[in-house]
Amino acid sequence: MAAEMSGGDLSRLRQLNALAVIKALQGQDSLTLTEVAKRTGLSRASTEDVVRELLQKGWVTEAGATAGGVGRPARRYRFRAEAGRVLGVDIGGHKIRAVVADLDGTVLQSARVPVAPEMGRLERLEAVDRAVTECLEGAGLTGGEIWASGVGTTGLVDGAGRVLLSEALPEWTGVDLAAHVRRLAPAPVLVENDSKLAALAECWRGVARYAKDMVFLLAGLRTGAGLVIDGKLHRGFANASGEIGALPVLGWIRAQEHLSAANGEAGGEAGDVFAAARGGDKAALAAVRRYVKDLALGASALVLTLDPQMVVVGGGFSRSADVLIEPLKRELDRWCIRTPEVRMSALGDEAVVLGAVRLALDDVEDRVLDGRSPLVSHL
Amino acid sequence: MAAEMSGGDLSRLRQLNALAVIKALQGQDSLTLTEVAKRTGLSRASTEDVVRELLQKGWVTEAGATAGGVGRPARRYRFRAEAGRVLGVDIGGHKIRAVVADLDGTVLQSARVPVAPEMGRLERLEAVDRAVTECLEGAGLTGGEIWASGVGTTGLVDGAGRVLLSEALPEWTGVDLAAHVRRLAPAPVLVENDSKLAALAECWRGVARYAKDMVFLLAGLRTGAGLVIDGKLHRGFANASGEIGALPVLGWIRAQEHLSAANGEAGGEAGDVFAAARGGDKAALAAVRRYVKDLALGASALVLTLDPQMVVVGGGFSRSADVLIEPLKRELDRWCIRTPEVRMSALGDEAVVLGAVRLALDDVEDRVLDGRSPLVSHL
Repeated sequence: MAAEMSGGDLSRLRQLNALAVIKALQGQDSLTLTEVAKRTGLSRASTEDVVRELLQKGWVTEAGATAGGVGRPARRYRFRAEAGRVLGVDIGGHKIRAVVADLDGTVLQSARVPVAPEMGRLERLEAVDRAVTECLEGAGLTGGEIWASGVGTTGLVDGAGRVLLSEALPEWTGVDLAAHVRRLAPAPVLVENDSKLAALAECWRGVARYAKDMVFLLAGLRTGAGLVIDGKLHRGFANASGEIGALPVLGWIRAQEHLSAANGEAGGEAGDVFAAARGGDKAALAAVRRYVKDLALGASALVLTLDPQMVVVGGGFSRSADVLIEPLKRELDRWCIRTPEVRMSALGDEAVVLGAVRLALDDVEDRVLDGRSPLVSHL
Repeated sequence: MAAEMSGGDLSRLRQLNALAVIKALQGQDSLTLTEVAKRTGLSRASTEDVVRELLQKGWVTEAGATAGGVGRPARRYRFRAEAGRVLGVDIGGHKIRAVVADLDGTVLQSARVPVAPEMGRLERLEAVDRAVTECLEGAGLTGGEIWASGVGTTGLVDGAGRVLLSEALPEWTGVDLAAHVRRLAPAPVLVENDSKLAALAECWRGVARYAKDMVFLLAGLRTGAGLVIDGKLHRGFANASGEIGALPVLGWIRAQEHLSAANGEAGGEAGDVFAAARGGDKAALAAVRRYVKDLALGASALVLTLDPQMVVVGGGFSRSADVLIEPLKRELDRWCIRTPEVRMSALGDEAVVLGAVRLALDDVEDRVLDGRSPLVSHL
């Protein structure tokens, strides 16, 4: 509550100012001190202090100079996104994705290892090892050079990085993913549910960048949700938010069955049904309609609960936006008091792994703030 | 983002410190400077500065002295809760409640005017006038002495204090409650949905004081919900959060009908059914069971969406906790991944009007913070 400037507060303030300068420089080629001061709202003197400190610590470097109209050219500074590396991993039913990103969140290297939904725990963890190892090798890094790792998985995850409950993957309940990934890269490992990470990614790099409250719908072989409330990922008291699928009347449990039923005994992928619907096939159109009705029922419960600014539809089926989005809007209109803006994800398959990168970067930034920056040990 | 201390920041900091001292003193008889410093975490010197300023402005007054062991007795200070007055109004189907409270939120005077659900707009607004006038007169105040008013009503409310949609009360859609109450007390008027205000009250003075995330269920002739997320009332993009009742499959629309059906053609109140159930009447027990099943279905959708720490049940039916709470917990257990703590409201009938007082006090405190304190014009 108290906002007086004690010694601790002052050092906190310096860290907040440092983070403000870093955020201003991130994603820019380079800025002058004047430009940094303008973007952060800091005074010229404070800006100089902070930039000097960040130069010393290795977060910022000089980047040539701009020739001014008169007088001597202004020095330019840039964020050293290359100062550190984070790892992002997406563990899915059909694939394992691993990426290495710099401190701007730019993906430098990625690897993908196909897996099958019915694989057991050991086989899936071996595939994780292969994806991470391949990705690190491709980036020319050892695990010790990673500052933080983010991991996305299906199922409920506890605060310590363990899978509490997974119904989609066999033998997945109880697996300690944080410990497993820490063997490969001995930095902090943050583990989170895949729908929640996709929500995070949509607010960071996706179509929900300007939304404060957002519902992310994972529409694919599984149906799930991730919530961003007041600009923050809403996890819930036991990290079990967004689990509306547990309520049978809301239709998510059976939603996907309409698509597999349309494929009949011959089998085939859900994508085939969307393709047939696109071609005007009546049975396929009816199956998609039934699927959307069930998807929209659960989505309406989320929307009526939260009244979000935006709903973002992602997951494998978001590629079929052309046959999904209009019927989905119509169904939401039917149930919701106010239908929010409905957007299809532009991140597609990348959403979860990008969310994992964001989670890792959040951890790195927390450590800038509390003074436990990995730079101390890496410079 | 920037946290540097500009002139504006310093004055903001002084205001935050002032509010910290006020919060420390509120609800206490009196404190010494040492005690204030300890509770706020401010230094002795800053505490003295802030208390001196608050004395000058009339928020704080001296309150005798404590005889110390040695040396001269320490001066004591207390918050002048009597420095200002706020008004709270609850506009319901069956009653209008108005209260006057001091700046501690202590209710000093209250009035209650019975109304009927079928009354039209003018008749209901006249009842509001009577309740407010009676309450002000009882407190010996004129409308001009009120610093802020909070108003609770059924229905959806916009940001300007107008009822956007009310299905429960006839001719209530479109009424400009802020303008109406401002005629009676020309200070700022904040209008909010009644379930949302009850949620606010439970987190302030009720059973949810220690819950960061909380779902309030209004269980009465209507069923509604209010959400507190991360310690703040969650309103939604268009103030339409918690409206899960709009989804027929979630049962809230029909929930209450089970109770009226149990009373049969003879009529009677829902309370009669609860009383009969308490006495072991089989038909009444079955009706209560059906009611609880429907209440729990919608509540489960809220819980599965948010994974809150606590569910608080309020509204008229919360008086029948003994026959409601155990069946409700069992039904929640059936659907929820993690059943949160379920508590009955201890505020009962007072919850909405107390939430209205809290809303008014929030406005007063905002004006302490931004320097537009009503004290300036009232001292």
